[in-house]
Amino acid sequence: MRVGVIGGGQLARMMIPAAINLGIDLRVLAESDGMSAAMAASRVGDYRDVDEVLSFCRDVDVVTFDHEHVPQPVLRALVDTGIAVHPGPDALLYAQDKLLMRAKLDELGIPVPRWAAVEDERELDAFLADNGGIAVVKTARGGYDGKGVRVVREGRDAQDWFAALAEDGNRGALLAEEFVPFRRELAQSVARRPSGEITAWPLVESIQQDGVCVEVIAPAPSSAGKLATVAADVAIAIAEGLGVTGVMAVELFETTDDRILVNELAMRPHNSGHWSIEGSTTSQFEQHLRAVLDLPLGPTGTTAQWAVMVNVLGGPADGTMADRYNRVLSDYPMVKVHNYQKAPRPGRKIGHVSAIGNDLDTVAYDVRAAAAVLSR
Amino acid sequence: MRVGVIGGGQLARMMIPAAINLGIDLRVLAESDGMSAAMAASRVGDYRDVDEVLSFCRDVDVVTFDHEHVPQPVLRALVDTGIAVHPGPDALLYAQDKLLMRAKLDELGIPVPRWAAVEDERELDAFLADNGGIAVVKTARGGYDGKGVRVVREGRDAQDWFAALAEDGNRGALLAEEFVPFRRELAQSVARRPSGEITAWPLVESIQQDGVCVEVIAPAPSSAGKLATVAADVAIAIAEGLGVTGVMAVELFETTDDRILVNELAMRPHNSGHWSIEGSTTSQFEQHLRAVLDLPLGPTGTTAQWAVMVNVLGGPADGTMADRYNRVLSDYPMVKVHNYQKAPRPGRKIGHVSAIGNDLDTVAYDVRAAAAVLSR
Repeated sequence: MRVGVIGGGQLARMMIPAAINLGIDLRVLAESDGMSAAMAASRVGDYRDVDEVLSFCRDVDVVTFDHEHVPQPVLRALVDTGIAVHPGPDALLYAQDKLLMRAKLDELGIPVPRWAAVEDERELDAFLADNGGIAVVKTARGGYDGKGVRVVREGRDAQDWFAALAEDGNRGALLAEEFVPFRRELAQSVARRPSGEITAWPLVESIQQDGVCVEVIAPAPSSAGKLATVAADVAIAIAEGLGVTGVMAVELFETTDDRILVNELAMRPHNSGHWSIEGSTTSQFEQHLRAVLDLPLGPTGTTAQWAVMVNVLGGPADGTMADRYNRVLSDYPMVKVHNYQKAPRPGRKIGHVSAIGNDLDTVAYDVRAAAAVLSR
Repeated sequence: MRVGVIGGGQLARMMIPAAINLGIDLRVLAESDGMSAAMAASRVGDYRDVDEVLSFCRDVDVVTFDHEHVPQPVLRALVDTGIAVHPGPDALLYAQDKLLMRAKLDELGIPVPRWAAVEDERELDAFLADNGGIAVVKTARGGYDGKGVRVVREGRDAQDWFAALAEDGNRGALLAEEFVPFRRELAQSVARRPSGEITAWPLVESIQQDGVCVEVIAPAPSSAGKLATVAADVAIAIAEGLGVTGVMAVELFETTDDRILVNELAMRPHNSGHWSIEGSTTSQFEQHLRAVLDLPLGPTGTTAQWAVMVNVLGGPADGTMADRYNRVLSDYPMVKVHNYQKAPRPGRKIGHVSAIGNDLDTVAYDVRAAAAVLSR
């Protein structure tokens, strides 16, 4: 069984342990030398280059991804050559363009914040007038971790982005969304096989700072019952409606008036699912490989009452995460450290820590403390 | 952090997930292409060749092993060059020669079966006469998985081995041991850092067939209390007495008259500890890497009441383990499959399966059934 992964970041890296266990020959097309998934990098090359990607994919059973940025023409060329691509181009299209995605979710009857495609400041001003004078504006393509997202109060707040669109010449638009008063952010991950089987992990709470996920609690506190059911139903409807194969994560708002609205979605293993490495019988990375190979999916139950994951952002200014191991491993013995082997840089996601246990306060305290030691 | 592993078998392979998590740059000197640990194989070469091994080890922080067969002169050359080697040659000497090991264990006051070094049939006959007419004879060097072990009733039963010794010309001897009437076999694993910290996993039961481990139950049923304490004390005394660094497994007999006797020991992660991947907060592979890097050791508690591991021996005659995944993954969802990517061959250890849970009967049933599907 050979799986080719396009992109050599930490998501490809974290597929390696699952591949080793199941005896899957994992091959990675990395963007450059020394990427996170370097151990499995059988090739370094440009994922936008059709010939490069075709050549990389020629001797694998299935191709999947570390990110959603492979251009549609490259994806189509793979499919046309008879290579199994999961998720496929038709599904990835929606992950690549937020406007297409919102329109599709509307069509599927999935609850999303009120939205509009706005082509200039005047249209944005009109949207603001209809939505209480405040909105969230997002670029349709290329945003992540808070990049390409901005809260605005007047049309000119997005002046530079409109100018960039005009320069681009593609008659593009920005996505304007209502500013949703939410109680908290949640995330629901599912996995779906090409043959249709689908599984959902427990709903989790995702805590963000400056648009970046900093912490995940699994399952989301006080989420048992209707909330969990609604979230799983929404994610399953999206996965089926969009024909997603592999793991998909749906970021959700729990609004102050008790609604669940879809914020974003990712068609790959996602930061909000890293807890599953220790916290679930089947990690999102193992499940993703099983799903794209169309193998039976694994149970998604938890291995303890709680799992907490905290990202390591930044890292020591004068060294690496590993320089803090003596302190972290001795002071927080129950915490599992995941080091992506990325050079520390302010705000950069260079690893995560997680722990499982039956007392949420203890688990959360340890994980936060360990992350703090590793982050600076 | 760079760790060099000499030997590319499944033990090196199973260090990869732990290395990926902790951000350790793992490099393997493999015996040939396509070994189990191929993904981390940075070099293929002969571990008996001093220059080859020295060159492989030059840019790593510490060297450790997939097996205990690296010759002493090679080990000494590494140490003389200033390379950190764990376990070191002084400790490995005892893992390489059963006669030296028995003498050392006697010196340390560790309980072992009655034994003698026998140089010819006459000496073996004398040992048999003193020990009820039955004994176990072992070659001092090179045995594993039942190879180099034989039950004898007269001196001539070991005729061929004595002949081989005479040809070898080193004035060697065989190890004769009393045939111990045992209730069951147990195994106790520990890990020790160069700076002295030592941890012990729970005592496990190891079920053997034809000298090969087929199943491990962790913890060993009815072992809480004195039995567990004695076993841990014995293993710790050996690790400290022999100066072992890294993981060491001690195979034990629980005799019908309630004694604990040391059978064999291994200075590396061991088949009897594979359950720890799912069943312990710290797997033996993670702990081994932490120990040889002299990092704080992790907690060795269990993640559930029971863990059961069954080896996959042989494999499908007409294909590979992976050909059975559709059936195994759907019928035994709680079982985790470990596939060493070795070609099936009658009796060959090509993988293992394990599961954790709070009902031993259920866990054992599932794991045995899954192994049976994968084994033929």
